[in-house]
Amino acid sequence: MTRIQRFETSARMSHAVVHGDTVYLAGAIAADLDGDIAAQSAEALAEIERVLALAGSDKSSLLTAQIWLKDLPRDFAAMNAVWEAWVPAGHAPARATCQAEMADPRVLVEFIVTAALG
Amino acid sequence: MTRIQRFETSARMSHAVVHGDTVYLAGAIAADLDGDIAAQSAEALAEIERVLALAGSDKSSLLTAQIWLKDLPRDFAAMNAVWEAWVPAGHAPARATCQAEMADPRVLVEFIVTAALG
Amino acid sequence: MTRIQRFETSARMSHAVVHGDTVYLAGAIAADLDGDIAAQSAEALAEIERVLALAGSDKSSLLTAQIWLKDLPRDFAAMNAVWEAWVPAGHAPARATCQAEMADPRVLVEFIVTAALG
Repeated sequence: MTRIQRFETSARMSHAVVHGDTVYLAGAIAADLDGDIAAQSAEALAEIERVLALAGSDKSSLLTAQIWLKDLPRDFAAMNAVWEAWVPAGHAPARATCQAEMADPRVLVEFIVTAALG
Repeated sequence: MTRIQRFETSARMSHAVVHGDTVYLAGAIAADLDGDIAAQSAEALAEIERVLALAGSDKSSLLTAQIWLKDLPRDFAAMNAVWEAWVPAGHAPARATCQAEMADPRVLVEFIVTAALG
Repeated sequence: MTRIQRFETSARMSHAVVHGDTVYLAGAIAADLDGDIAAQSAEALAEIERVLALAGSDKSSLLTAQIWLKDLPRDFAAMNAVWEAWVPAGHAPARATCQAEMADPRVLVEFIVTAALG
């Protein structure tokens, strides 16, 4: 049995869960939900960096990313521009993107990632 | 090479797959699709407990959860109430929730979880 | 720290990432987006076989599959027919399927899988 470590755990979710040498993150959204897609993407990715650091990893160790966009045709290109500038060259994770409605209607993008322990 | 164990395997899917000390579950839905969101949430989570036990785990070892709701604005609060009562205190997984249509139009909620072996 | 191997890595994503003895694949779609659901399903699954081979695995070692369909009521049965003929008997992964819009509006189906190293 491998020990599980949870970070920032509430009744609803943990922001990160570490099992073995894999880190699983909760879906990450922007802090300010009034921003446009570029601002929300940047803030959500900053939140991922914060939680990865908490769990002992960083963005050079991403394994997977699932990306949900509220308005994919409108926001795909602008989200990708922020994403591609943020991911360290040569370290992009396996990725899949679709359109979805999130819990708060102001959320334009949510990123769900996993990473290896650093 | 780590051995893979599959549980309740059909031509379409296995209800659980164990690899190393990680358990992957198929999307879980209610047994009775005529129930409301509270009833469907409770039944789907009971199904998860059943399959986790089959695979040698339990709900205190959840790593991740992805939750799909057919009508998120209407059903988010009621699903969360059932979810938060069901998850053992201090053991909530990394979670992400969005709105989605499932294979049967009567499905109001589907839970996709992974867990550690107990 | 377990070494990470990435395959076919661009600025946006890797087509496969290996960590420990687990392989994570990017969402796979058909090469020809003018095909119907049967043709697109077959091509996307062929792409998965190609990428799994690259990463040192194969379709008998699938752990999970998440399947996104653009028009679930219309295409669920035809996708399943292709899927069930493709998955080796007794080796089906844990699976979940929902309806979603993908980045290119012609995409009818996308498969996101993980597998064990062969």
